[in-house]
Amino acid sequence: MYRTHTCGELRPEHIGKQVVLSGWVQRSRDLGGMTFIDLRDRYGITQLVFNMETNAGLCNQARKLGREFVIQIHGRVQERSNKNKKIPTGEIEIITEKIDILNTSNLPPFTIEDETDGGDELRMQYRYLDLRRNAVKKNLELRHRMAQEVRNYLSNENFLEIETPVLIKSTPEGARDFVVPSRMNEGQFYALPQSPQTFKQLLMVAGYDKYFQIVKCFRDEDLRADRQPEFTQIDCEMAFVVRDDVLNTFEGLTKHLFKTVKGIDIRESFPRLSYNEAMSTYGSDKPDIRFDMKIYELSEIVKGKNFMVFDNVAYIGGICAKACAEYSRKQLDELTNFVTKPQVGAKGLVWVKYNSDGTFKSTVDKFYSQEDLETWAKLLRAKPGDLLLILAGDKTSTLKALCELRLEMGNRLELRKKDEFKPLWVVDFPLLEWDEESRRFYAMHHPFTSPNKEDLKLLETDPGKVKADAYDLVINGVEIGGGSIRIHNEDLQKLMFKTLGFTDEEARSQFGFLMNAFRFGAPPHGGIAFGFDRLVSLFAGLDSIRDVIAFPKNNAGRDLMIDTPSVISEVQLKELSLKISIEKEKK
Amino acid sequence: MYRTHTCGELRPEHIGKQVVLSGWVQRSRDLGGMTFIDLRDRYGITQLVFNMETNAGLCNQARKLGREFVIQIHGRVQERSNKNKKIPTGEIEIITEKIDILNTSNLPPFTIEDETDGGDELRMQYRYLDLRRNAVKKNLELRHRMAQEVRNYLSNENFLEIETPVLIKSTPEGARDFVVPSRMNEGQFYALPQSPQTFKQLLMVAGYDKYFQIVKCFRDEDLRADRQPEFTQIDCEMAFVVRDDVLNTFEGLTKHLFKTVKGIDIRESFPRLSYNEAMSTYGSDKPDIRFDMKIYELSEIVKGKNFMVFDNVAYIGGICAKACAEYSRKQLDELTNFVTKPQVGAKGLVWVKYNSDGTFKSTVDKFYSQEDLETWAKLLRAKPGDLLLILAGDKTSTLKALCELRLEMGNRLELRKKDEFKPLWVVDFPLLEWDEESRRFYAMHHPFTSPNKEDLKLLETDPGKVKADAYDLVINGVEIGGGSIRIHNEDLQKLMFKTLGFTDEEARSQFGFLMNAFRFGAPPHGGIAFGFDRLVSLFAGLDSIRDVIAFPKNNAGRDLMIDTPSVISEVQLKELSLKISIEKEKK
Repeated sequence: MYRTHTCGELRPEHIGKQVVLSGWVQRSRDLGGMTFIDLRDRYGITQLVFNMETNAGLCNQARKLGREFVIQIHGRVQERSNKNKKIPTGEIEIITEKIDILNTSNLPPFTIEDETDGGDELRMQYRYLDLRRNAVKKNLELRHRMAQEVRNYLSNENFLEIETPVLIKSTPEGARDFVVPSRMNEGQFYALPQSPQTFKQLLMVAGYDKYFQIVKCFRDEDLRADRQPEFTQIDCEMAFVVRDDVLNTFEGLTKHLFKTVKGIDIRESFPRLSYNEAMSTYGSDKPDIRFDMKIYELSEIVKGKNFMVFDNVAYIGGICAKACAEYSRKQLDELTNFVTKPQVGAKGLVWVKYNSDGTFKSTVDKFYSQEDLETWAKLLRAKPGDLLLILAGDKTSTLKALCELRLEMGNRLELRKKDEFKPLWVVDFPLLEWDEESRRFYAMHHPFTSPNKEDLKLLETDPGKVKADAYDLVINGVEIGGGSIRIHNEDLQKLMFKTLGFTDEEARSQFGFLMNAFRFGAPPHGGIAFGFDRLVSLFAGLDSIRDVIAFPKNNAGRDLMIDTPSVISEVQLKELSLKISIEKEKK
Repeated sequence: MYRTHTCGELRPEHIGKQVVLSGWVQRSRDLGGMTFIDLRDRYGITQLVFNMETNAGLCNQARKLGREFVIQIHGRVQERSNKNKKIPTGEIEIITEKIDILNTSNLPPFTIEDETDGGDELRMQYRYLDLRRNAVKKNLELRHRMAQEVRNYLSNENFLEIETPVLIKSTPEGARDFVVPSRMNEGQFYALPQSPQTFKQLLMVAGYDKYFQIVKCFRDEDLRADRQPEFTQIDCEMAFVVRDDVLNTFEGLTKHLFKTVKGIDIRESFPRLSYNEAMSTYGSDKPDIRFDMKIYELSEIVKGKNFMVFDNVAYIGGICAKACAEYSRKQLDELTNFVTKPQVGAKGLVWVKYNSDGTFKSTVDKFYSQEDLETWAKLLRAKPGDLLLILAGDKTSTLKALCELRLEMGNRLELRKKDEFKPLWVVDFPLLEWDEESRRFYAMHHPFTSPNKEDLKLLETDPGKVKADAYDLVINGVEIGGGSIRIHNEDLQKLMFKTLGFTDEEARSQFGFLMNAFRFGAPPHGGIAFGFDRLVSLFAGLDSIRDVIAFPKNNAGRDLMIDTPSVISEVQLKELSLKISIEKEKK
C-alpha cells in the first residue's frame, strides 16, 4: 500500500493520525533547524516537517531530495502553527517519520508552477511535465466533468451513445481526408472520418431516433493556431424532428452544462438570429452579443454631399462606441491603424465625436454639416459623449471590417467579459456558396443539409437564393456547434448532388449507400455537432483549444513528445503495396 | 411536430386521448371490414385500427401501405377488445383518423423480425435494416447502458476520462499497425494506436493517478470470426498501486456492472489462480469455471504396466465426467472423433467407465487391473456412475486437448449456462515467451510489464523463468481484460528491451520518449484494459462480438455497406507522396 490518504485530503480532524502519503516534491525549504517539504499529488499539497534536533538523519535525508522526486512518507498529522488559509490542507502538516524514495528526478527543463518559465515548444516536448501544472490539470478535470454532464443529460433524454466506425471511406467533398492503406485489400484505402455524418444518418434510417457520441474526428488541413488534425465532437442526430426540436434539446444541454459545471443559470431562451440579420447587424455569422454596439448602414443618408469616398462605394456602415467622444488623437490613430492593417482591410476610418455639449467633431466636417452628423448619430443610436466609427467600401468586406472594429472596441471597453456567456442561434444560412474559381456551388454546411421547404422550388432555377434549414450555436463570438435538418428523400438528395456538380456516377460511387438507404423508409431527421474542444476551452476561459487537449499536436501536425509522424520500415511499406515518391521540386 | 408519443408509450390511462404517432409499418392485416397495422419505432409497437364501414377512404389508404413505409398518424387511443399481454402497449390501440406518408419503402431484402431470413453478407450490406431488428437493437442499448455504468463507477472512484491521441507513432513490437501517411511531413506516417499504452503511462508520470478511457483501438491482423480491425477498450491506469489495488478496483467495477446491468449480485471475491495452476488444472489460461471437472495428471500411477502409449509419453492426464458411465458406443466414438480432429490434436482417447456397481470397463482393460483403475478413479475424484476420459502426449498439447475435451463435455452436459457468470483472476504469467523461429524472447503481455520483484535477479540469468506482475480477468472461459504493474524505472526498462533483443538505438528511437519520462519522477503504476466489445457480447449472451457493434467489418476487413476500403484519387496519392506498387506475383 503506497498511501493511506492523498495530498489534498488531510484536515484538522485528522490531527494525531498516523498516515502514509506518496507524491512529488514540489519545493523544499531549509530553515536551519527545520526543513519543510511541499508534497504534491493530483489532489493537492501537504506540508511535511523535518526537525534537525529530534531526527537529524531523516532531516538530512529530506534536504537531499530534489524537485519532482517521487517519495513515500510515513508520519503523523499535527496542527500547523503557521496556517496557510490559501490551501485546503493549510491547517495541518505531517511530522515525518520515514522517507522512501520511489523514484528520483532530473531537474525539469521548466518549473512546474502555474506561471511556468517554459516556452511552447519545450512544454510540448515534455508534455508529461507540463500536464503536472495545476493550470493544465484543471482544464482536463473540467473536460472530464463536461463529458460526464453531456452524457448524463443526453442519456436522460433517451439518447443512445452509439460508436460509429473510424475506418471509413474517403470522399473528396469537404476538407481533405486522412487515409489508411489497407494491407488486406491491396491498393485500397480507408479514410478517417471528418465527422460521423453519414453513419448517424444511417442510424436514423435504422430507427435509433436519438443518437449521440463524443467522438474523435479528423481533418488533414493546414493548421491554424486553434485547429488540430484530430479533434473531438459531441455528435448528435434525431429522427421525427423539425428544427425547433433540435434547437430546444441542445439549448437544454447547453443550459445544463452552464448550470452544473459553472453554476450559471441561464433562464431566458437563446436569441435566434437569421444569417442575414447577423451579417448586417454584426458583420459576422458568429456575433459576440455580450455587448450591443450594433452595426447600422448609413449608405442612404451620407451620399450626395460631394464626399467621394462615400459616394463611390456600395456600402457605408458604422458603430457607436459609448462614452468614447473624449478619445485622444493617439487613440483614434490606433483605431485607424487597426482598421487599415491587411487582416482587417479597410481603406480608412471616418470618426465623428458627439461631444457632451451636443456639438460634433469629425474627420469629414468639410463635407457634412452639424445637422448631417446629428442625423448619423440618431441612426447609430448615439448620445452626447459617444464616438461614431464609420467604414466604407464594398458590402461584404466592409461589414467584415466593421465586425473586427466592433470586437476591438469591445476589447478596449472591456465589454467582452470572460465570465459572462451569451449564447444565440444563427439560422437560415444560405444552402450554397458559389466558388468563382471552380465555377461551381459548394454546400455551405454539407451536401446532406435540407433546403428550407419554401425555397425548394428555387433549387433548380436559382440555387444561390436557397436558404438551408441549418443552424449554428454561437457563444461569445465562437461557433460552438452547427447542424441542420437533413435531406431524407432520394430524389432531393440526387438533385442536391447534381446542383453541386456531381455526375450520377460520382454521387453513386461516393454516397450510393446513403441514397440506397433512403429507399427503405428513411424518416425525417436532423442533428447537430458541438466542437467539444472549443466548448471546453470556452468554459475554461482560454483562447486556444490546445490546453484542453492532453496531448496536442503543433501547427505542423507533429507530436513533439513522441516525435511523430515518422518514417516506417520498408517491410511495412511493402506489406501495404506502397512506395514513397517525393517529387524533387517539392523537396 | 411529428409525434406526441412514441410507439412504446401508450397505456390504458391514455384511453380517449388524441395522439400523433410516427413510425414504420411493421405489418398490416386486412380482415375485410377492419384493417390493423402494427406501427413500430425504437420504443415499441402500437396497433392502429382502420374501419371499412366508418371510413372507407382511410382504410383503403391504409391497405396500400407497404412494409417499412414511414408514416405519421393522428388518432384516438381506445381499449383493445383482443388484448395482447406480450407487449406493454397490448391493452390499447389507435382508432386512426389521418395518415401522412413520410416516406415510402422498397421491399426490404430480408424480413425485419427477430428471426430474419437474411444471410450474414446481405445483412451487413443493408446493416441499416438489420439494425432495425429488435435482436440487434437490444445489444446496442445494452452497450450504451454498460458504457454509462462503467463511466459512472470509475468517475465515482475519482478516475478521470482523458482522451489520448489517435494519430500516434508506429512501433514494430506487437501486432501490425495501421498507418496514416502525413501530407505535411512527406514520406512520414502516423500510426493508429493498438492501445493507448504509452500515453496512459505518461499520464501516470504526469500525476493523473487514476485514468480511464473507453477508446477505439486498431490492429491490422488477419481477422478471425471474433476479431475486428477496430475494437473498443475500457482502458485504465493507476499510480501508487500494487497488484491488489488494481484487482480490487476492477473487481468492483465488474461486480457493479453485473449488479446494475444484469441484476446479478456477486458477493464472493473472484478466485485468483496462478497461470501455472490454471494451465495444469484446466489446460488453459482462460478457464471456464462454471463447472468443475478439473484435469488431473495421471503420469506417475499409469506408467510401467506395458501400455506403450502411456509409457512413451511425457504426460498423461484425465478428467471425470459425472454420471456418464452409461455413455453408448456411439457417444464414446463421437468423443474419440472430437479429440482426434486436427484442431484438438490428440492421438486417441482412453476411457474408463466407473460402473454403478463399482466395476470398471475401459479401453485399456488388457493392461490395467480393476485395482489400477480404481486408483485412477480415486485420483480423478470419480464416483460410481462416472466416466473417466484420459489423454496422453507431450504436456503442452495434451493439456490443450484436455481443455477442449473438458469444454466439449461441459457443453454436452449443459454445464456452461449462458445466464451464469463465474469470473476469476489469472495471475503470475510468465514475463517472456521464447520464439524458436526468430530465436528471441517476446513479451507475453508487452515490454512495459514489470517482472515480479522476487524474480528480478533472474532477468539477466534465466529470463524464461521470470514471472510477470500481470493479471487477466476471465469470465466463463473468455478473457475479458488484462493488465499488469508496469516498469517505472529507466534502467529496468532498458534491461527489458535488451532482453527482447532491441539495440539501444532501436529502443531509443521507438520508446525514447517513455524512457526520458522515467527520468523525471515516474511513480509506480499499473493498469488494465477490458475488451469492451467482448464484455458486452458476454453480457448479451452472444458468441461473436459482431452484433454488439453498430457497423462491423467482415473477415476481410471490409465494410460491405459503404464498400470500403476503396481506391483513392491520383491527386490524393500525389499529395501524400505515395505510389501504389502491387507486386505481380501477389496478384
